[in-house]
Amino acid sequence: MEVRDPLPGYQGKIRELLEKQGARIGSRIRIVKKPEVYIEGLLMPKHSFSSPSTIVVKLDNGYNIGVAVDSNTRVEIIEEKVRVRAPEKPIVKQTRKELPRIKIISTGGTIASKVEYETGAVRPALTPEELIELIPELADIAVISADVLFSILSENMTPNHWETIARRVSEAIISENVDGVVIAHGTDTMSYTAAALAFALQRLPVPIILVGAQRSSDRPSTDSALNLIGASIAASRLPIGEVMVCMHATPDDSTLLVHRGVKVRKIHSSRRDAFQSINDRPLALIDPLAKKYKILNPRYIPRTSSAEELIVKAKFDDKVALVKAYPGFQREIIDFLVDRGFHGIVIEGTGLGHIATHTLSSIARAIENGVAVVMTTQTLFGRVNMNVYTTGRELLKVGVIPGEDMLPEVAYVKLSWVLAQTRVPTEVRKMILTNYVNEINPIHTAELYPKWSW
Amino acid sequence: MEVRDPLPGYQGKIRELLEKQGARIGSRIRIVKKPEVYIEGLLMPKHSFSSPSTIVVKLDNGYNIGVAVDSNTRVEIIEEKVRVRAPEKPIVKQTRKELPRIKIISTGGTIASKVEYETGAVRPALTPEELIELIPELADIAVISADVLFSILSENMTPNHWETIARRVSEAIISENVDGVVIAHGTDTMSYTAAALAFALQRLPVPIILVGAQRSSDRPSTDSALNLIGASIAASRLPIGEVMVCMHATPDDSTLLVHRGVKVRKIHSSRRDAFQSINDRPLALIDPLAKKYKILNPRYIPRTSSAEELIVKAKFDDKVALVKAYPGFQREIIDFLVDRGFHGIVIEGTGLGHIATHTLSSIARAIENGVAVVMTTQTLFGRVNMNVYTTGRELLKVGVIPGEDMLPEVAYVKLSWVLAQTRVPTEVRKMILTNYVNEINPIHTAELYPKWSW
Repeated sequence: MEVRDPLPGYQGKIRELLEKQGARIGSRIRIVKKPEVYIEGLLMPKHSFSSPSTIVVKLDNGYNIGVAVDSNTRVEIIEEKVRVRAPEKPIVKQTRKELPRIKIISTGGTIASKVEYETGAVRPALTPEELIELIPELADIAVISADVLFSILSENMTPNHWETIARRVSEAIISENVDGVVIAHGTDTMSYTAAALAFALQRLPVPIILVGAQRSSDRPSTDSALNLIGASIAASRLPIGEVMVCMHATPDDSTLLVHRGVKVRKIHSSRRDAFQSINDRPLALIDPLAKKYKILNPRYIPRTSSAEELIVKAKFDDKVALVKAYPGFQREIIDFLVDRGFHGIVIEGTGLGHIATHTLSSIARAIENGVAVVMTTQTLFGRVNMNVYTTGRELLKVGVIPGEDMLPEVAYVKLSWVLAQTRVPTEVRKMILTNYVNEINPIHTAELYPKWSW
Repeated sequence: MEVRDPLPGYQGKIRELLEKQGARIGSRIRIVKKPEVYIEGLLMPKHSFSSPSTIVVKLDNGYNIGVAVDSNTRVEIIEEKVRVRAPEKPIVKQTRKELPRIKIISTGGTIASKVEYETGAVRPALTPEELIELIPELADIAVISADVLFSILSENMTPNHWETIARRVSEAIISENVDGVVIAHGTDTMSYTAAALAFALQRLPVPIILVGAQRSSDRPSTDSALNLIGASIAASRLPIGEVMVCMHATPDDSTLLVHRGVKVRKIHSSRRDAFQSINDRPLALIDPLAKKYKILNPRYIPRTSSAEELIVKAKFDDKVALVKAYPGFQREIIDFLVDRGFHGIVIEGTGLGHIATHTLSSIARAIENGVAVVMTTQTLFGRVNMNVYTTGRELLKVGVIPGEDMLPEVAYVKLSWVLAQTRVPTEVRKMILTNYVNEINPIHTAELYPKWSW
């Protein structure tokens, strides 16, 4: 008869701590960590690549978290009864070959972060392997391979990073023949990267899913496990050949939404359901427990039949600015951008696409100097219509390109992408007005506007 | 027996047109105007100050519109039966002295605009008298006096205009002793002006209500009548001593919302219910037919008991910029603002209040040069929290002032207002962090976030 290790993966001091309490895999334990962490759940096995000072616990809501143990940590055993069977091999190796194959590319952000215990702040740290360890459910969804591409907070992403990510994704599609790609990304600028990849990688044979977390993996309230499960379901099963964002649909853990990458925005600084589709319906709903999806928006771009159809145009012009209009806006800001040799300016205008009339001469000069100027609206919802008021008509007359219903951020990414391909004004205009990946929604129905509570 | 004029106020050609059809006040008429205008309703009397070429019609939804008549207009009488009694005197003179007295100050915008028939575009034109003529219901709400202060589209508002409006409002309160003030304003930058007046005029003895229209008065779908009725009810009856915005609560004409001026935003480019409270509950709901209000947010500032308590600080610094962060943001934009002698910069950052780390040196240099830098978030919903991530803590360390849950636009207005009073950095910081008129909401409850449909 085989003797099974009661605490697989646990070594050194942490093993002693658990042994002292008589804990074994499946024991219900309570972790008390001063001053405020208090976690209850079932002790789970660990894998050799995980941090030696972490205890993995399955919470009652069904997912696993890793808790770093330090001298302030106390572990109590609540119930000795073993509720789950300890796996005999590391979970990653359990994945079955008949499952879809997905690639998880980590770029950093909260989803791949842990708390710096000395300061209480959060910084990127977890490797994709650690992520998989924390979420054994992934093994039932797909055969996972994982790369760390960067480890940066998303506020530090630049158009250069977009290009690197796009090239890595296209490699995974072409050379590794994966069935879907998941990109772990910080949430701050995730929608910008999603839009960039959507323009850079067209005619996709597989879904590309960006995913992030609003709460760090070491917090009991983390959303990273469920988001990564949802993203993996989306990447491996959706019939959609688009770049998308998968995040919580609601503050609870019941459902996830998959948003079109060019129609999504982080619209809350901290909620789990911070990402919402603007001016378009989300593409799909994911039920992470049932591992099922439901298409919400029939106007999706289907997967192409072959990786050979993939179009890669991954260059972005970094001489583009996104400028917000406001009362008292100083037109010298536009003059400065023109004088500094910028190639494009996206204006986040007011209402139907306006900016103060006194800026008109500066905008006209910009356009005369070959700078492309695109107008969007800071209302975010709705579209620009520059034919209604005199101001709009005058802006059109000097050559401003209306941004339709594109979010200012999406228009900024699109103009950067267009200007990397051409700077001929008529071509730039034509490309901005071309609807490449449903970044323009020609028909807005009433239910696209959220319900405001009062 | 007195002979009553069957068409009071109608003169010349337009009178001939109506007489030819046998129309009289209360007749149900149809106005057909090529190529697309088609209006049905009851013929209403006109007043001497209205445009001679306008027909006033009460629509079935209960409010009146003026239709300009030209050579393409055909008038048909549908029903001769008189459904409303023609008033024997002009409606403005019917106002009773015991009603509250409100001042309507017109600054321009769609609510005070008419269509340029030659171009189809809209430009400001209607006087407050014309507005009152179009909306006889106002006479039952308050004794109205009206001024035209400007006639500009709101995208052309500047901090100088804010000061002029604030001074005119304070005059109306102090010298004319009105019970409320309504400001007709273009919707594009209405929330900026609302915030500016909220800081400029504190300890208010009467409500100050900004109101606009998303559809011009000459369109059958205009919202200007109902919005002006709602604003007049709010200005004359609310117990609230704040600057507020009154606009449609829903796309239909049933209810209006009164929003706190420092917590409201135009969040749709064209819908009637484009204005919504962000990070706070609306202050009140207005039922325009019942002429009643309901307080929705108990955390309002009550009217002060006397105009003597009014604080007027109406100066704004115009050397302030509102700058949006985005991936690839060029720090030379900040350097330029510093070199050009700007006094303040509000950053519309990402997430919890971030901007790319490479900008840190430029931001530090700005602050060393005495430029106040305030951080807000482009998520709009939620608040900045710069203690969570390394980026935020580094920004705090160099002296960036966190903007709490203020909208970027409100922080911009507030910083302009603060810098007109002091440029001493410790004072500026203290004032930005001071909650003057509930521009900071310390407690966010879950229902402040709208319900997203999918």
